[in-house]
Amino acid sequence: MLCRLPLTVRFGECDPAGIVYMPRILHYFHVAMEELFAAAVSRPYARLVAAEGLGFPSVHVEADFRRPLAHGDRLEIEARIERVGESSCAFAFAIRGEGEDDPRATGRVVTVCIDLASGERRPLPEWLREPLLAAAEPPL
Amino acid sequence: MLCRLPLTVRFGECDPAGIVYMPRILHYFHVAMEELFAAAVSRPYARLVAAEGLGFPSVHVEADFRRPLAHGDRLEIEARIERVGESSCAFAFAIRGEGEDDPRATGRVVTVCIDLASGERRPLPEWLREPLLAAAEPPL
Amino acid sequence: MLCRLPLTVRFGECDPAGIVYMPRILHYFHVAMEELFAAAVSRPYARLVAAEGLGFPSVHVEADFRRPLAHGDRLEIEARIERVGESSCAFAFAIRGEGEDDPRATGRVVTVCIDLASGERRPLPEWLREPLLAAAEPPL
Amino acid sequence: MLCRLPLTVRFGECDPAGIVYMPRILHYFHVAMEELFAAAVSRPYARLVAAEGLGFPSVHVEADFRRPLAHGDRLEIEARIERVGESSCAFAFAIRGEGEDDPRATGRVVTVCIDLASGERRPLPEWLREPLLAAAEPPL
Repeated sequence: MLCRLPLTVRFGECDPAGIVYMPRILHYFHVAMEELFAAAVSRPYARLVAAEGLGFPSVHVEADFRRPLAHGDRLEIEARIERVGESSCAFAFAIRGEGEDDPRATGRVVTVCIDLASGERRPLPEWLREPLLAAAEPPL
Repeated sequence: MLCRLPLTVRFGECDPAGIVYMPRILHYFHVAMEELFAAAVSRPYARLVAAEGLGFPSVHVEADFRRPLAHGDRLEIEARIERVGESSCAFAFAIRGEGEDDPRATGRVVTVCIDLASGERRPLPEWLREPLLAAAEPPL
Repeated sequence: MLCRLPLTVRFGECDPAGIVYMPRILHYFHVAMEELFAAAVSRPYARLVAAEGLGFPSVHVEADFRRPLAHGDRLEIEARIERVGESSCAFAFAIRGEGEDDPRATGRVVTVCIDLASGERRPLPEWLREPLLAAAEPPL
Repeated sequence: MLCRLPLTVRFGECDPAGIVYMPRILHYFHVAMEELFAAAVSRPYARLVAAEGLGFPSVHVEADFRRPLAHGDRLEIEARIERVGESSCAFAFAIRGEGEDDPRATGRVVTVCIDLASGERRPLPEWLREPLLAAAEPPL
């Protein structure tokens, strides 16, 4: 399962160089991850957090920024699940301009499942792990 | 040269899980990079950008988040220059709680020097490259 | 002319109380202002800034937050131009949940036109002021 | 009681016009409010939120931006408690450059006390209301 999210770069997301401030690109990744998560497990990400008391903090991130994302650009973020572990889940991302083949930015984020109340890492519950596994698209 | 920057985690920097939202940690890195840059080349980062027309966009980032940064925590960000290339510069970061040995978060950011007007990559000017090289602290 | 912009509240836009961090609501206003501006003058806001060298910094803001915007909420921001002066422009905003009548947040932002290079306030150029005036919807 | 907080404007806090993005100024206000709150009631703001289960969402904000805050500027935010009600508290802010008399930005934020678990408005507990009242500095 691929999730594709359109995105317009806003004025306040850009820095004095007129391009998206790097940490904001990681925020774009996170937003696409929320959408993909929701699509894969058929319930809103907000409900996982609020109703189920689960958290998914990032433990690792890596990204390459090849060409700038500029104010006003219309972009598309592509997200897929790369790997599902016992308690972790790895997501891969690519951001392209409209009609572009080569991504301007790519990245990976690894999250782990925690119990929000205790803050402790815990295995992904089966009702979550199964659909995540089914939705995973490992790299070719 | 090591740059150490104290930091208090603010309410609005935390997410619904009560810990610093991951992209914000990359912002912390960037702030420490600005300070280190300024210390190494003896002029404010803002002046490099505004008066010299140079930009330093990130082309690569990687980070590991081992333990959470929570609302109200007093932290210290340590930054050092890891490598200086023709036009690139790699920075390494570690974030620790007060009095802690093990970092809660570590990371690397690679930036390249560009001409702000054209957006084109360019070699680091010598007056910048030399003090950056002198300040570099490669990993042991 | 009314501009209505749909919006989903993202995880990273919420604070430890699980609701949108107040300054972020002002960012929502700004995003709607960019859209309205573009619709009123028939060119992207980014082009006004980049190609015309015009800036529109805020000089006044006021807002009331009546009910919280929570993580996952689907919202609609309504924006209209309330008043167009010599160099200033006042925008009014209302944020509602899907299908709601009473806004959860309302506000006003007054911007002035500046020359980006000098930073000096300047009259709105006629090609901008005229369509803004035509699009204005004063309060009843 | 006045709270004065020093502040350096960071690259990523500025927009393509090279000045602090307006919503970020409201974030500056909030940071100063957290410090003032902590000073007035002699415990960290984070503890009020986490340990006491109290929230202080903003219900009203107003601000005037007279002169820009630019990348690299060293600023001081002054915060004071203007009024303490049954469940509400009004804070006033002024941001000045180093050594400046006239503030570049001023504003007010009104917060109400809520029970975090229910989200319901509630009276300020006496142990909080008393020191806030004692610290209040109404305008002349």
